[in-house]
Amino acid sequence: MRATVMYGVHDVRVETVPDARIVEATDALVRVTRACICGSDLWPYNSMPASTTGNRMGHEFIGVVESTGSDVRTVKKGDLVVAPFAWSDGTCEFCQQGLQTSCLHGGWWGGTTLDGGQGEAVRVPLADGTLVALPVGPDHALMPSLLTLSDVMGTGHHAALRANVRAGKVAAVVGDGAVGLCGVIAARRLGAEQIIILGRHPDRIALARRFGATDVVSERGDAAIERVRELTGGLGAHSVLECVGHGESMRTAMGIARAGGAVGRVGVPQETTIPNAQPTFYGNVTIAGGPAPVRAYMHELMPDVLEGRIEPGLVFDRTTNIDGVPDGYRAMNDREAIKVMIEF
Amino acid sequence: MRATVMYGVHDVRVETVPDARIVEATDALVRVTRACICGSDLWPYNSMPASTTGNRMGHEFIGVVESTGSDVRTVKKGDLVVAPFAWSDGTCEFCQQGLQTSCLHGGWWGGTTLDGGQGEAVRVPLADGTLVALPVGPDHALMPSLLTLSDVMGTGHHAALRANVRAGKVAAVVGDGAVGLCGVIAARRLGAEQIIILGRHPDRIALARRFGATDVVSERGDAAIERVRELTGGLGAHSVLECVGHGESMRTAMGIARAGGAVGRVGVPQETTIPNAQPTFYGNVTIAGGPAPVRAYMHELMPDVLEGRIEPGLVFDRTTNIDGVPDGYRAMNDREAIKVMIEF
Repeated sequence: MRATVMYGVHDVRVETVPDARIVEATDALVRVTRACICGSDLWPYNSMPASTTGNRMGHEFIGVVESTGSDVRTVKKGDLVVAPFAWSDGTCEFCQQGLQTSCLHGGWWGGTTLDGGQGEAVRVPLADGTLVALPVGPDHALMPSLLTLSDVMGTGHHAALRANVRAGKVAAVVGDGAVGLCGVIAARRLGAEQIIILGRHPDRIALARRFGATDVVSERGDAAIERVRELTGGLGAHSVLECVGHGESMRTAMGIARAGGAVGRVGVPQETTIPNAQPTFYGNVTIAGGPAPVRAYMHELMPDVLEGRIEPGLVFDRTTNIDGVPDGYRAMNDREAIKVMIEF
Repeated sequence: MRATVMYGVHDVRVETVPDARIVEATDALVRVTRACICGSDLWPYNSMPASTTGNRMGHEFIGVVESTGSDVRTVKKGDLVVAPFAWSDGTCEFCQQGLQTSCLHGGWWGGTTLDGGQGEAVRVPLADGTLVALPVGPDHALMPSLLTLSDVMGTGHHAALRANVRAGKVAAVVGDGAVGLCGVIAARRLGAEQIIILGRHPDRIALARRFGATDVVSERGDAAIERVRELTGGLGAHSVLECVGHGESMRTAMGIARAGGAVGRVGVPQETTIPNAQPTFYGNVTIAGGPAPVRAYMHELMPDVLEGRIEPGLVFDRTTNIDGVPDGYRAMNDREAIKVMIEF
């Protein structure tokens, strides 16, 4: 089968790899129908040490179950399923509390030992705990929005929950990438009255406004902090969704949080420390978040997608087939595309 | 009147200063009956740049109202009152949400412009929002425990709340000072099943056990982290109360938090950044806390003190008069005393 393999900085190839197959009795074999490229894929795209074996890529996908191991109970051949960006057993103490990204027996797609979503098929470990069946067919018009349940919509929702977004309050979203845009959707869905997006790309800002952003801050650094304070009566935002992960974006996020507020961080941190230890202490600002347990959110968010109340699939502004994946990475990295969908 | 003034490192003096007096209509004049020295007073004790004017000290006190400004309604001459370690108006949006330490019109005791608690009398600004009347007389046997409501007991409670202590779960308390010991009381009061104290002073550890600690970890650094993990099935503590503020104690706190857990930090941070940004991200560990809004907790904790369910006053293991304050600082700094009470 064909799959995407990354070998180093800006070195993404589509290659023929061994066919995915059932190994464990708890596995499912899924033929991928849709996948996508993630903003977090750009971190290794810009930093991966050169490798001769390469890493299989992709952690967001929808597909049709082709076969299942003998222990699999909840999905069956022919089901259309969506996979979260981490696989999990669904039964350990972390899964039971809805933190599937910390599953004691789970893990991450791709790398050197597992299939990735940016390929024609995937062996899905722990299929019962991992996959969620979709009640529609693979060509349904809402497929892009359903695909975002595998990561970005659930991740934006996680940021909003961890930032404690509340009805009638002020939310600020740092970052206008696909996750930030989904964060705007999530903040609006949870009832935030004022939603400030911090970003500077006109196409993304336009989408943020469509999703419910009420204010746009295009400044950076201290100027951004000052502008947010102006927009919030000098006090800052009750909830800050950090959707980038850079040191600078984290400093901004910490700087615009109101006393007693919260920063929900979902951008993968690129620095080893968290800034502003002292001002956030004196302000009793909570810092929360991490990899979103999107598996826990699928059943909550799916009805809103299927009934058209939210349209996160609009973050896909480019579609390609598998041959176009390397150029899709380039386009996202050059900020030509917000998020690239792959059709198989 | 006489009051405590700090002039620099290890330079604490008891001096005659201008008498405290009513200035604003919202003030109360309080004749101090009990006060104490705080672990946080030791930070300037070890680092204050030499000053010719000095800083008035003390932020924990009980006293008798001697007079009130014309606008004061909730306390009157003759009332015995306890003061929280920050003064606040009680009406702003932060006070109304129970975050009096972020009061828009409040502030901190002592320094160069206000009286401190380690003196014979204090002008209390915004008396209605700040003071809480006590239903007992000034010589009541529970006075030490009531005095802890001004800071350390409320601060331990804040750490426990922000660390999300829950019945039946595991709490770890980093630091065996007075706040850490009150954190043990708070964790037990909120129902934690396993309470691990990280500390090494035999007298303090004995008190921690009396307060409800089930396990003691006297190692430091990575060895402490390893030991806590051994005690928690490899997973770490659901709730970590950081009651020191050193970089090392914060690294330990972050290292022993379970995935999905929380660190409640109440030790004043001595570093500008928070460590472990990445592991805490991957584990969805929440970092919360700050100066405790002890004013918000007084009414909740006072019945437990008055009815003997908690005995935080046991953290005072030395009592002095005002002349002994400089030696009280020395004794606490040398770890001869856990916490020193001042009787007037």
